[in-house]
Amino acid sequence: MEVTRTLARYVLASRYADIPPDVRHEAARSFLNWVGCAVGAARHETVGRALAALQPFSGPAEASVLGRKERLDIMLAALMNGITSHTFDFDDTHLRTVIHPSGPVASAILALAERQPVSGEDFMHAFILGVEVECRIGNAVYPNHYDVGWHITGSAGVFGAAAAAGRLLGLNEQQMVWALGIAATQSSGLREMFGTMCKPFHPGNAARNGLLAALLAQKNFTSSNQGIEAKRGFANVLSTKFDASQITEGLGKTFEISINTYKPFACGIVIHPIIDACVQLRNEHGLKADDIESIEARVHPLVVELTGKKTPQVGLEGKFSVYHSAAVAVIYGAAGETEYGDDVVRDPKVIALRDRVSTTVDKAVHEDQAHVAIRLKGGKTVQKFVEHAIGSLDRPMTDADLEAKFRGLSTPILQQAATDRLIALCWKAETLKNIVEVARAAIPA
Amino acid sequence: MEVTRTLARYVLASRYADIPPDVRHEAARSFLNWVGCAVGAARHETVGRALAALQPFSGPAEASVLGRKERLDIMLAALMNGITSHTFDFDDTHLRTVIHPSGPVASAILALAERQPVSGEDFMHAFILGVEVECRIGNAVYPNHYDVGWHITGSAGVFGAAAAAGRLLGLNEQQMVWALGIAATQSSGLREMFGTMCKPFHPGNAARNGLLAALLAQKNFTSSNQGIEAKRGFANVLSTKFDASQITEGLGKTFEISINTYKPFACGIVIHPIIDACVQLRNEHGLKADDIESIEARVHPLVVELTGKKTPQVGLEGKFSVYHSAAVAVIYGAAGETEYGDDVVRDPKVIALRDRVSTTVDKAVHEDQAHVAIRLKGGKTVQKFVEHAIGSLDRPMTDADLEAKFRGLSTPILQQAATDRLIALCWKAETLKNIVEVARAAIPA
Repeated sequence: MEVTRTLARYVLASRYADIPPDVRHEAARSFLNWVGCAVGAARHETVGRALAALQPFSGPAEASVLGRKERLDIMLAALMNGITSHTFDFDDTHLRTVIHPSGPVASAILALAERQPVSGEDFMHAFILGVEVECRIGNAVYPNHYDVGWHITGSAGVFGAAAAAGRLLGLNEQQMVWALGIAATQSSGLREMFGTMCKPFHPGNAARNGLLAALLAQKNFTSSNQGIEAKRGFANVLSTKFDASQITEGLGKTFEISINTYKPFACGIVIHPIIDACVQLRNEHGLKADDIESIEARVHPLVVELTGKKTPQVGLEGKFSVYHSAAVAVIYGAAGETEYGDDVVRDPKVIALRDRVSTTVDKAVHEDQAHVAIRLKGGKTVQKFVEHAIGSLDRPMTDADLEAKFRGLSTPILQQAATDRLIALCWKAETLKNIVEVARAAIPA
Repeated sequence: MEVTRTLARYVLASRYADIPPDVRHEAARSFLNWVGCAVGAARHETVGRALAALQPFSGPAEASVLGRKERLDIMLAALMNGITSHTFDFDDTHLRTVIHPSGPVASAILALAERQPVSGEDFMHAFILGVEVECRIGNAVYPNHYDVGWHITGSAGVFGAAAAAGRLLGLNEQQMVWALGIAATQSSGLREMFGTMCKPFHPGNAARNGLLAALLAQKNFTSSNQGIEAKRGFANVLSTKFDASQITEGLGKTFEISINTYKPFACGIVIHPIIDACVQLRNEHGLKADDIESIEARVHPLVVELTGKKTPQVGLEGKFSVYHSAAVAVIYGAAGETEYGDDVVRDPKVIALRDRVSTTVDKAVHEDQAHVAIRLKGGKTVQKFVEHAIGSLDRPMTDADLEAKFRGLSTPILQQAATDRLIALCWKAETLKNIVEVARAAIPA
């Protein structure tokens, strides 16, 4: 079974007319959410430092950094937009693999579309296909690949970026096979980097390297024909599990983007059910920090493994602290970017409550569930079991929720009128004559 | 034990005065050999295709592609020089790890030195340190890391490039730690790509990404402080063996570049003892292809694993065919770039002899050894046991051998006078006021 070739053939043979309307709508939701996250983080210091380092080496200034005025060459723009869109850890999640799928793909092809005209329909089609490729490859190797230590958004994302860019570049079958191979040999990104600026670097790097792979393949730069499935290819080297059928079966019948989800909270998704429970308890019982003796959360094992930082020092570390997250959820009833600011993480009031949060690991608790018990000083205990966290597939954010989230991210950067216009453009992306309209509308006046 | 920090501290604390003269001389030999390989392959189609794909995206044209007239931004130049120097598979080898050490390091820092003035002494010092870093990291994870399927020249090379570039950029200790971390999270390159254009892409990509890591770190782009040794850091994720003492012990006392070796033949090093034996037998007995009934080689297991292609179709595949290599060694008494041309691989005379070559795997045969028995049509058999192949540490190429190899590579590109001048500059690199002189002398008139 030629896995890489089968995938390449599908990406080239797919027709937009064959993609069901609900899948297209989910793609629009994903795209909207991605643009909002990218614009919202545009002024973050992670972005500023990367730009300061790399702008001096930019080639032709053909592409935008969403939310900023600088223009860069398309590969550097792909890198930067991938960084911005993941900086707040607020982007989408393909729950089966914990891939954040839009970043690597959309960053690569929006930059490319600023160099060569791409219709909204072709863009959204390539976007859906790129997400399909990265998530199917993720499905084939998850969870072992992730457990080994790979940040799957980077390591699988590079394939999605290569496939989507390759489709828009008009690669032939052999070139698409090579593009996926060149992507395979750049696959990288370590989970060790969580909590540092390298985490958002990963989807950016996947976008840049996937675009590079497609551009090289277009000029017949060769690679293996079995980059994914060979004995020493991606799957066998970077994972201890490889189920090729997850890549090759049902192509064109199911669409991974249709099970994409969006974060209501600006942190790792495993904390969401705990935050959800804390916000609900706070609102139902009118809780204040001073009333609280302790907060006890019974959680899935990954919660402690991924977000077990007890004493975060900066905002970024706060996102990897279930303790900080529970505290702000109770105090502010929210866990947006503001609640992960450095000042909030260092606020004595937050620290005092954070230090009273404890976790118990329970394998019977699913990843989108949590039991939270808040013990009050008077002796009373209030409890909440969240069966499916808000933002999960079973309790998805509505289109209106997504717009509200977008506004919260974009308005501080673009102001209100431009934000409204950008939202409208994202919803009708597939009808645009040239997708570059979206990029232009995402630049501050 | 903070492995990454210990390494970072050493790279910053080292003084050129403390590096012994024999180590410096070996560094000059390595540098000379690297320049020759890069210049020699400058017109290869691998290089042409990569340039066609990527030159349109180049930033400020500050750096050279050795052997060519194009000028590119320093990151793209680092990529291209890394590709050219490994395209002929003719570069150097650190035998303990099979890393080709000069490519990732020299490609990164020569490009950087074209943007900011760097003295010959500072350059050679950074070069020695970069090689030290990548080879020590290789030592710590070899052979398991390689056995898993990583092309160690790329996956370890990125650290060497980052360290050397970081030293020249004047990083402080924390920045150097971050640079190594950013390198770790880009570590990549699959052995599956051997026999395709992606193999030389790996050292190029390591050079580009290592330089990127150092530039990001210079602007305080953060990464893990334990990129190498953390539970989910480079060593544990990309290898099943990690001996940290190989990185931290004897720093400044031993130098990995002092055990560097150079290839007399333009193919994978594991075939060299067989070629050596065949050339010796040919010359001692005046053998001609028509006289030969069969060639039987008793070899180390890796020979068949890495170079077992029985029916190569193009020159590049010929380099991964012990059968083709033995045939040309007997017919031409050589295995240079010419003998791996497409025309030679397809020559019926070569194919006829190639099909009479057989191998027997023998675990008692060391990697730099081979037994070759050539059965003649008259019934006689001539035999040769090579105890240490030419080019190995025990039978090193002399300085004169290296110059002759350089001339063979460079003269077709730069002509004789410029080649002589370039050789002289490489030998005295450490005394140059500005190392950029070497880059300038490597451009065709």
